[in-house]
Amino acid sequence: MRHKSFYRRDIISILDFTREDLEQLFEYADKFIEYGDKKFSVLSNKVITLAFFEPSTRTRLSFEIASKKLGADVITIVGEEAVSIAKGENFTDTIRMLDTFSNAIVLRHRFEGAAKYAAEIAENPVINAGDGRQHHPTQTMIDLYTIKKLFGTIDGLTYGVLGDLRYGRAAASFIYGLTLFNPKKIYLISPPLLRAREEIIKVLNDKGINFEETTNIEDVLPYLDVLYVIRIQKERFPDPMEYERVRGSYRVTLDLLSKGRKELKVLHPLPKVDEIDHDVDSSPYAAYFIQARFGIPVRMALLALLFGVEI
Amino acid sequence: MRHKSFYRRDIISILDFTREDLEQLFEYADKFIEYGDKKFSVLSNKVITLAFFEPSTRTRLSFEIASKKLGADVITIVGEEAVSIAKGENFTDTIRMLDTFSNAIVLRHRFEGAAKYAAEIAENPVINAGDGRQHHPTQTMIDLYTIKKLFGTIDGLTYGVLGDLRYGRAAASFIYGLTLFNPKKIYLISPPLLRAREEIIKVLNDKGINFEETTNIEDVLPYLDVLYVIRIQKERFPDPMEYERVRGSYRVTLDLLSKGRKELKVLHPLPKVDEIDHDVDSSPYAAYFIQARFGIPVRMALLALLFGVEI
Amino acid sequence: MRHKSFYRRDIISILDFTREDLEQLFEYADKFIEYGDKKFSVLSNKVITLAFFEPSTRTRLSFEIASKKLGADVITIVGEEAVSIAKGENFTDTIRMLDTFSNAIVLRHRFEGAAKYAAEIAENPVINAGDGRQHHPTQTMIDLYTIKKLFGTIDGLTYGVLGDLRYGRAAASFIYGLTLFNPKKIYLISPPLLRAREEIIKVLNDKGINFEETTNIEDVLPYLDVLYVIRIQKERFPDPMEYERVRGSYRVTLDLLSKGRKELKVLHPLPKVDEIDHDVDSSPYAAYFIQARFGIPVRMALLALLFGVEI
Repeated sequence: MRHKSFYRRDIISILDFTREDLEQLFEYADKFIEYGDKKFSVLSNKVITLAFFEPSTRTRLSFEIASKKLGADVITIVGEEAVSIAKGENFTDTIRMLDTFSNAIVLRHRFEGAAKYAAEIAENPVINAGDGRQHHPTQTMIDLYTIKKLFGTIDGLTYGVLGDLRYGRAAASFIYGLTLFNPKKIYLISPPLLRAREEIIKVLNDKGINFEETTNIEDVLPYLDVLYVIRIQKERFPDPMEYERVRGSYRVTLDLLSKGRKELKVLHPLPKVDEIDHDVDSSPYAAYFIQARFGIPVRMALLALLFGVEI
Repeated sequence: MRHKSFYRRDIISILDFTREDLEQLFEYADKFIEYGDKKFSVLSNKVITLAFFEPSTRTRLSFEIASKKLGADVITIVGEEAVSIAKGENFTDTIRMLDTFSNAIVLRHRFEGAAKYAAEIAENPVINAGDGRQHHPTQTMIDLYTIKKLFGTIDGLTYGVLGDLRYGRAAASFIYGLTLFNPKKIYLISPPLLRAREEIIKVLNDKGINFEETTNIEDVLPYLDVLYVIRIQKERFPDPMEYERVRGSYRVTLDLLSKGRKELKVLHPLPKVDEIDHDVDSSPYAAYFIQARFGIPVRMALLALLFGVEI
Repeated sequence: MRHKSFYRRDIISILDFTREDLEQLFEYADKFIEYGDKKFSVLSNKVITLAFFEPSTRTRLSFEIASKKLGADVITIVGEEAVSIAKGENFTDTIRMLDTFSNAIVLRHRFEGAAKYAAEIAENPVINAGDGRQHHPTQTMIDLYTIKKLFGTIDGLTYGVLGDLRYGRAAASFIYGLTLFNPKKIYLISPPLLRAREEIIKVLNDKGINFEETTNIEDVLPYLDVLYVIRIQKERFPDPMEYERVRGSYRVTLDLLSKGRKELKVLHPLPKVDEIDHDVDSSPYAAYFIQARFGIPVRMALLALLFGVEI
């Protein structure tokens, strides 16, 4: 089952994969969903390191559960320990140590390119659990899988991506992921200050994707099948005053959603702050809790493919 | 073995249980003691979340060991990560995420009612590992089990509960737990500023318990079979000056204990600070280390009953 | 296989062992290396506590992996939780709790003698994972094992120990470890302010070891088979100004090493800061990454011997 696209491969950017790769991953995730809570022992000889130099409880827990459900042992670097490592020794030595100690490194880092750099040093696979402002490939795998499960397809749908497109890496990575499929159209919806950066626009143009930038969610909402919302990435603003100027600048309410298609689904990588009204949570529009749930089977599938184990 | 009182049930307050429930739990704990260090695999398909929004090493470790000894996988939120979650998203979303990721949530929280609220949101069982000033049901299960093991019975004994009865939830919960049995008498012993709050007194009156409030430990010590001591809950005082006025206001010494019954046993939920003299530790009065040890089999019994597994 | 020198024994100082003890340990470590990534279940009924009252990611992770690879469950106290315990209750109570909860305590502590004191309290074995300025026995076991693997012997070689010999416990412990064998000569190389303390010199004299103190690495480098480098232990300087006077006072470069024997190997307990030039990392001199890797099989061997289990 050693699928060439995953076996012992570094997982750095969603753009490194093809739709066929992802479809195989999704089939594998389906299997894990069928198995329910079952615990496997296929990775019982493996140690997986979760090195979170930037906090992310949700991603960390989801990787930890996925790893343990496959029988792997997990070691974790997080919080002040991560900070102190980052201060005390160079990143190269840290990665070498973790590579020596374990069979794969799941890395979260504030700096763009950290995962790629780590992958160059480490002999074992490195999985990017989010670095910088652009890449979060496993989140995108989960997002796309969720859409596949909800709509049966990722192609031919109209997408809105709403929010902080300037600093939000989950959004950037999601947009990149869509380019592997055939979206009908992608609307990039954001306040002017939070517009998608040039590199994102360039990828869309290069891939010939039908897209449009707008500041007004109400205008485009009626066309959407999927609305992907992200929070304002406060922690990545270089200037706190700039953050103050945009905070609360968008908010998804039931009233707004009622102007769209009945089948419209709202996704969000979570945690959400105040960009989605609580009333939406219990409506049929809300797909973000099921999306969170899919984090575990999709990451189990990825790890199983990465280590080339049959289940 | 799906005992209706425990199977898939939220564990919020000791008052939700009957003495029959607890007796069944104790029988189950006996079994785990007989098995010694043995590790089981009955919960190997389960993930248990330890979400400690307020620190508590002892309770956390004891739940972690109990869970792992039954074969469960454990994920932990603690320390600054817990603080950052508490700041970053609403509690409802956090509980939903944890409920999605795991099969049970063990919750510690500063706010009264947090566990109950979480239980309303979560589909899976929530176990209150201490919230607010009143409830810590699993600690009480351990306390009562310890008394049962030491005296063969919980009924008919005379109890003293000494210390910060105003803020100490272990004490409040212990007093509530005693009301499920037939204590001969309960003495509530505290400095005037730390008297038991009205709600505790009300429960004792409603249940027709023979009790007496006093500020003087020496007067009542000769009558006691069990002296339950708690530390002053410094972290729950709204005013630090108030804490200064009561610190060091009670202290259990060997000299004091020598005025009581030979069979007198001193319990303490630990950690203790300076309210018990170190000389007491190695005396036959001290039961708090065995009490700590019982934390593991009692919590194993609770988890086994909760998930309805045979051992 | 209950080797009397290890079975249920506290591991406090490398000086408590004989070369025969260590040779048996090394044979055992060889076995684990042969087994590769294999996970064992020999300690599946055991709980091992990692209590790191002073941070040390590398040692912690290496013990955690070694424990889990043998099937043990691991509980960890680290970071702010460790700090808060250290503040909140006396050390004796903490050790009693951990001893009650688990089958062995791996202890890291800032204070000299902490491990020995803990061992007097605990019924179960205590392993010193570094305390104070002198003792770090498991690091030394790894260091000596590395030399054995690289040179086939520990006897008859010429050693240089370079760096902060005043505060560096890995260096002190390594020097003590060498006294169990027959080194040809040991050079203690350090800036004047960081000379080895009297107690180290005394051990060397008492054991009749051929050694020499020097401040000049260049003079002695040509004679060395092994150069053991440690960083300046900034965190142990009572006076920050004193640290400023010695920082950067030694640095190992490829240029320097080229003046020594071709077979010269550089060891370092890691993390390194700037005392070894990055160019050295990829040279044949560098043995510190393989040394780090050996941490796992050596600690697995120690735990297996400690619990008297066959593999």
